[in-house]
Amino acid sequence: MAPSPDISEIKRIGIVGAGNMGTMMSFGFSENGLDVSVWDVSEKNVKEAQEMAAQTKTLKGKIDHFKDIHEFTRSLDSQPRKIFIFSITHGWPADSVLDKIKGDLKEGDIILDGGNENYRNTERRQKEMEEKGVKWIGMGVSGGYQSARRGPSMSPGGDKEAVEFVLPLLEKFSAKSAKDGKPCVQYIGPRGAGHYVKMVHNGIENGMLSAVCEAWSFLHKSLEFSYDEIGDIFEKWNAEGELRNTYLIQIGSEICKTKKTSEGDQHGEGKGKGGYVLDDVLDKVVQDDDSSEGTGFWTVIDAAHRHVSTPTIAAGHFFRVASGNRAQRLKVADNLKIPKPQQQQRADAKDKDALVESLRKAVYASFLCSFCQGLELIARASRDEGWDVNLGTCIQIWRAGCIIQEDHIADMLEPILLGAKEPIMNLKLVGEVAADLRNNFDALKQITLKAIEWDNYVPAISASLEYLKYVGGGALATQFMEAEMDFFGAHAYDRPNVRGEDPGKTAKGAHHYEWRPA
Amino acid sequence: MAPSPDISEIKRIGIVGAGNMGTMMSFGFSENGLDVSVWDVSEKNVKEAQEMAAQTKTLKGKIDHFKDIHEFTRSLDSQPRKIFIFSITHGWPADSVLDKIKGDLKEGDIILDGGNENYRNTERRQKEMEEKGVKWIGMGVSGGYQSARRGPSMSPGGDKEAVEFVLPLLEKFSAKSAKDGKPCVQYIGPRGAGHYVKMVHNGIENGMLSAVCEAWSFLHKSLEFSYDEIGDIFEKWNAEGELRNTYLIQIGSEICKTKKTSEGDQHGEGKGKGGYVLDDVLDKVVQDDDSSEGTGFWTVIDAAHRHVSTPTIAAGHFFRVASGNRAQRLKVADNLKIPKPQQQQRADAKDKDALVESLRKAVYASFLCSFCQGLELIARASRDEGWDVNLGTCIQIWRAGCIIQEDHIADMLEPILLGAKEPIMNLKLVGEVAADLRNNFDALKQITLKAIEWDNYVPAISASLEYLKYVGGGALATQFMEAEMDFFGAHAYDRPNVRGEDPGKTAKGAHHYEWRPA
Repeated sequence: MAPSPDISEIKRIGIVGAGNMGTMMSFGFSENGLDVSVWDVSEKNVKEAQEMAAQTKTLKGKIDHFKDIHEFTRSLDSQPRKIFIFSITHGWPADSVLDKIKGDLKEGDIILDGGNENYRNTERRQKEMEEKGVKWIGMGVSGGYQSARRGPSMSPGGDKEAVEFVLPLLEKFSAKSAKDGKPCVQYIGPRGAGHYVKMVHNGIENGMLSAVCEAWSFLHKSLEFSYDEIGDIFEKWNAEGELRNTYLIQIGSEICKTKKTSEGDQHGEGKGKGGYVLDDVLDKVVQDDDSSEGTGFWTVIDAAHRHVSTPTIAAGHFFRVASGNRAQRLKVADNLKIPKPQQQQRADAKDKDALVESLRKAVYASFLCSFCQGLELIARASRDEGWDVNLGTCIQIWRAGCIIQEDHIADMLEPILLGAKEPIMNLKLVGEVAADLRNNFDALKQITLKAIEWDNYVPAISASLEYLKYVGGGALATQFMEAEMDFFGAHAYDRPNVRGEDPGKTAKGAHHYEWRPA
Repeated sequence: MAPSPDISEIKRIGIVGAGNMGTMMSFGFSENGLDVSVWDVSEKNVKEAQEMAAQTKTLKGKIDHFKDIHEFTRSLDSQPRKIFIFSITHGWPADSVLDKIKGDLKEGDIILDGGNENYRNTERRQKEMEEKGVKWIGMGVSGGYQSARRGPSMSPGGDKEAVEFVLPLLEKFSAKSAKDGKPCVQYIGPRGAGHYVKMVHNGIENGMLSAVCEAWSFLHKSLEFSYDEIGDIFEKWNAEGELRNTYLIQIGSEICKTKKTSEGDQHGEGKGKGGYVLDDVLDKVVQDDDSSEGTGFWTVIDAAHRHVSTPTIAAGHFFRVASGNRAQRLKVADNLKIPKPQQQQRADAKDKDALVESLRKAVYASFLCSFCQGLELIARASRDEGWDVNLGTCIQIWRAGCIIQEDHIADMLEPILLGAKEPIMNLKLVGEVAADLRNNFDALKQITLKAIEWDNYVPAISASLEYLKYVGGGALATQFMEAEMDFFGAHAYDRPNVRGEDPGKTAKGAHHYEWRPA
């Protein structure tokens, strides 16, 4: 093979997909001085992207929009390697585009699939492209359209040489850590490792999102705070302590304070005389059911598949799934007549302050549980698949630009995980993590109790509480489960205080008792 | 094709697998007058099964044990159709046996795979066998080795003609409903439907098992009841009311009362001077991690995949998964120092009685939540896959012989589900179900509060409480989640009180607000 060309020879990249993410990425790369070619299967998308580009004053590199896909690929032909970023829906759309451009690709070309793709699909395409010498890189891009513009967090995985070749481009474009200015993009690992890490990032996000919305509901419906007051509370949480610089808290504060105006936003949304835009938002989350997003439920699937306990993530997921079909839910509501969240009328200001502080700690504990569960899932997958993913690298690229940015957790975990001599499979064995979980346990318990008392929603917060109890319990209720399984299924058990059995292996026990002769 | 032979021509069946289940089935069929051929890959298993058979006085049909697999298949050759039951581990073992006997099979032969196989594997084998005219039937067998002997509950799915041909044999052998004497085996549906229904049965079982063990822990560790007292309580629960004739409660009562003896059981297990066998059982459930059982986590996987909210089942699953690695758990316990379940010292007898009654209701509510979640998952899969599974049939075959037997739930659901003109996709829309959930909501809430207050374990019980709140909530906390997702991802939302949007479709909303200009 000829020696690898230099990245400075790459003056132009191709972006497949002119939706939100693709368009914002085209602007981002252009602002960094690269020329960009954009193509989308929908001519409407291409036209809209073109119009938006025309109105954007900050662009430096040229952006060219294409309706014909082969003209699009030819626009990159003069370079030693063609570089594409796919920003389209996972599954068949990526396959269909790949099919169309396959003939235009040559050895050395690199495709960075920036969609939220399932890592198994990524690995299939990598194999398919290998024959041609084309490098298919599965690259998580986190931060949504907001940070696709300003610089996202990225997790490229696949052929190492190819990732390292494009890394200088990605580093320019990526978010930078506020702590040390490091770009939030690094090589994650071979094969599907990059997309896997992004998948789990989104799983952690689901657990955190649930905890945040549960906290909002508690503040608003139980403690009767106004949206503005909640905005102030979230702002304070975001300013210091364990929740400092937490993206989901910070945007939560903005959301609470966003009022309708007579003009609305640039598209006329959020128009009104006073009132809050939040009141325009219905309570149904549909991204799972309408298949626009797979990462959340794939995380639950993969955790179940690899036997990693992820109850906070799963609880948040099944909560949002149940919210999606609002029509059916309202019918069930008529039928069930379950009490609605109640106002805690008698709390005086002092009580309220104490509850808000406990809530802050409970939210933090739930966030940390989500991180433990997600990182342990990555650790398990990395071991199973031989990826050798460094969890510290994950924390580094999640420092900025991404949805799960949380400075205290990153500050705590980064040195520990980067310095670990062996992969850490269980985060609760890390002293600092355990201390934080222990120190916030009482608050987590108190908030769960209060929220349940007042009929508010705490699926992820209560799941976190249970998780902490059982992952650190020495005499679990599962003793009785094990006895029942031995009764009906002869599943066998190990005995306490017997060498080799207690704690023993995670494998079939040594004893079966004939509880009722069969 | 020649006309189908008559089932009366079948005098002998072949059982592959001489483990617990296979051996018990061979006895069961023999006691029903059939001759049985038994083969196992392990000569040790074959020998043990032979010895057990020699000691069993109740056998009628002849049981022959084979070490050579082709001699085994030849022993069925004289019949117009060979009938096999596989009772071996799911996955590659079934494939490897099938591979060995493939050449011995002829058109019309029937294999009933009674293992806990993944329905996708079943469908793959069905296709493979189709060419030869051999019928591969995926048949769930529930009830464990205990009821494999006395008559299990069975869910055969695949080729309808083949299932109907063997049904008379299966009916003889199967458990019978105590209500109307009906055999607990029926044709479930085409392709993988039978194994799917068994998989979900086991998922429901996981949710129920968790609720039962949580109840035991509450009674023992918080209310300080002795094992004997808990045995009495479970016995009462099992005698009447909503928990009447519930297998897991009934065996729970037996377990609590089983004392060690100086001889122990027939293998010398449970030997001791006084004390309870239950105290010999460690709290680690390993069946997921050691891959001996797949159905529990497959249910979680499939629920996530089909977007059916199953938090009770998932919470129970992640609880037992976390219990498996006891060595690591004890280390985490040292680190975390989370409070252990506390005794509720001050409760007087009257309080205790009231709490026990609330606990009974909370357990029932959790059971009913598990059934709703499982049945809705079957309904969704049936619609997705075109299986046309009747949920009423599922309830009928679960009336006896199986682990999730629960008379009140069966009595309530059977007529409704059998009589439904259209498939019921959401069980909470059934008036009787909703009434029971509503009537037991307060008890569920009270027990969750008390258990959390006393640091006891209630992952499945608390997940059921949250489930009931959110599946029947008209203004969920997910409103804030939806706003956050629109903020960072332009995921879009629908608006309240707007025609076509509220309740609207379970699909991408009509509005995106530019919370912070990108």
